[in-house]
Amino acid sequence: MSKDQQKSALSESGNKPASGNVSPESAKKIRNFRKNKFSEQDLLKDLLNGNKTALSRGITLIESNQPAHRNQAEFLIEGALPYAHKSMRIGITGVPGVGKSTFIESFGSYLIEKGKKVAVLAVDPSSSVSHGSILGDKTRMENLVTKPNAFIRPSPSGDSLGGVARKTRESILLCEAAGFNVILIETVGVGQSETTVHSMTDFFLLLKLAGAGDELQGIKRGIVEMADAIVINKADGENRKAARDAKLEFRRALQLYPAKESEWKPEVKLCSAIYNEGVEDIWEMISDFKSKVDENGYFKHNRLEQNKFWLYQTVNDHLKSRFYEKPEIRAALKEQLELIENNKTTAFAAAKYLLSLA
Amino acid sequence: MSKDQQKSALSESGNKPASGNVSPESAKKIRNFRKNKFSEQDLLKDLLNGNKTALSRGITLIESNQPAHRNQAEFLIEGALPYAHKSMRIGITGVPGVGKSTFIESFGSYLIEKGKKVAVLAVDPSSSVSHGSILGDKTRMENLVTKPNAFIRPSPSGDSLGGVARKTRESILLCEAAGFNVILIETVGVGQSETTVHSMTDFFLLLKLAGAGDELQGIKRGIVEMADAIVINKADGENRKAARDAKLEFRRALQLYPAKESEWKPEVKLCSAIYNEGVEDIWEMISDFKSKVDENGYFKHNRLEQNKFWLYQTVNDHLKSRFYEKPEIRAALKEQLELIENNKTTAFAAAKYLLSLA
Repeated sequence: MSKDQQKSALSESGNKPASGNVSPESAKKIRNFRKNKFSEQDLLKDLLNGNKTALSRGITLIESNQPAHRNQAEFLIEGALPYAHKSMRIGITGVPGVGKSTFIESFGSYLIEKGKKVAVLAVDPSSSVSHGSILGDKTRMENLVTKPNAFIRPSPSGDSLGGVARKTRESILLCEAAGFNVILIETVGVGQSETTVHSMTDFFLLLKLAGAGDELQGIKRGIVEMADAIVINKADGENRKAARDAKLEFRRALQLYPAKESEWKPEVKLCSAIYNEGVEDIWEMISDFKSKVDENGYFKHNRLEQNKFWLYQTVNDHLKSRFYEKPEIRAALKEQLELIENNKTTAFAAAKYLLSLA
Repeated sequence: MSKDQQKSALSESGNKPASGNVSPESAKKIRNFRKNKFSEQDLLKDLLNGNKTALSRGITLIESNQPAHRNQAEFLIEGALPYAHKSMRIGITGVPGVGKSTFIESFGSYLIEKGKKVAVLAVDPSSSVSHGSILGDKTRMENLVTKPNAFIRPSPSGDSLGGVARKTRESILLCEAAGFNVILIETVGVGQSETTVHSMTDFFLLLKLAGAGDELQGIKRGIVEMADAIVINKADGENRKAARDAKLEFRRALQLYPAKESEWKPEVKLCSAIYNEGVEDIWEMISDFKSKVDENGYFKHNRLEQNKFWLYQTVNDHLKSRFYEKPEIRAALKEQLELIENNKTTAFAAAKYLLSLA
């Protein structure tokens, strides 16, 4: 179904004539209001029934920067909230070439065979430049994309990481309300995107390759520390031995990290996504994790903490942009940074001065 | 010299009689102004001459929360700035019991024998509770404390980490202006204090013990990643073998981390601070580091980046406290967090509402 068809379907409902005792202007307003209201309600109803087109349209509203769409999106999210949260949110990261798409194709297909409904989202703030490098090319998941119980959505583009993060988090809620119970959120190591994905998922999976030797250089600081599992992909054919060696090495390294708040001990797994090997084992591990964190209360606790984190994060981001985007602050900041570079002031004196301006 | 004596010495200067043609009120103002001005100027002069009492008094002004002292402190810092920055700033962290004080005693004494002037500061936001657990008990450095070329100052207490951080950073500048060319900044793993110390030092040293088995549990996430060197202390007597094993283990683990921007490869060293073994080797390593980062430009670059970081950090902290300390925000935040807990709103809707209030 094309976007235009979706639009016209949504516009059908609620075209009641205005009653006689209101001004044409008011009548128009009421009509528009009702029209939109009915559309959103229908959309919400369809979405809650698991209709993928409705879900897709809902996410488009979330991704839109138009104020009217924003209002519609908020209506949808509010309506979706009571039905959301019943899923496993899995973050998946790894450098380009590690086989993320192939892994998601294999893992996602396995989950669907197990009766799961799988949504795949992405957080890729670079996609405005690379025109949707992640998931943009759906042919890379040609099997998964045809399954009725799979929903695949590329990263929202043309936005800051903060913007992408909000949109993805809200999209997760809609996917969950539409009945998707495994949400895979893919990211590539760009800026802070792994930390962002980590802070919106229940389980964080780092995909690696063995034997490349230089593969360690590619991971940013802290990524290994965030991982609940390291999966060594392409552990097949001639790679098998190197993968097993890498597994031992990573396992040893992981022991150097302090215990996680979840009490979960990160595991290292081998996988050959292209031959569908190892994915069952990975799902079992994630199920074990889920049992453990359900039992010790961490699952619920972590989601609540994540929500609070996002509240503070959003407020703080706005406070900063309000401040730094003021023209007088921009000008003064430039001056103060130059004074710092020339060792004429301290960071604290400069900060005090800037704060005195706002 | 007691504090009272210091005070009277400072009060001596600048007591000129007011001239006849001003009001008594103005005369008093001028007198006070001159008196203070002269005191600060004398203090600055003494400080730049390397006088430890003047340095100590200067840091007391920095640590004071009285506005008048703040002005005096700012005068001193401004005067010190052109003479500061010519030092090596070394951050030292490790869990309690690892032997930080003994290490600093041994390492500091070695440096003084090499002709260095060594200042020891601490960042310990918990010291208001524990009454200066770090460096508070100077008898733990009984040798170092008697050396003319050593200056030891406990952590400023009764303050937030942000407050302690500002005070310590400003104190570093005064120490440098007073001719101290190695600044050791000690911290214990409390909250974000390691990250804070890392962001104000040139070289970050993590002290460890071998063979304790559970010692790995004690380090917070990311500390190993920040380290430029891991020093295994108490590598003596029966501990020697375990220390050597731990060295190999850490060395292997460090290879898993990506390359540092400084291009420095973190090293693992053995040390027995109590027997003064290994400290020379550690200083040679730090000297190698210095040569490398001087050559590739990272030293200067990093200090500038740190200054910029502190500018933004200070501004952002103030923006946040200005916002969250408003009574109407406090009340609304409490409400919104409850709504989030009960799954009645999203983090983003709550943030939008809070921002609409300010």
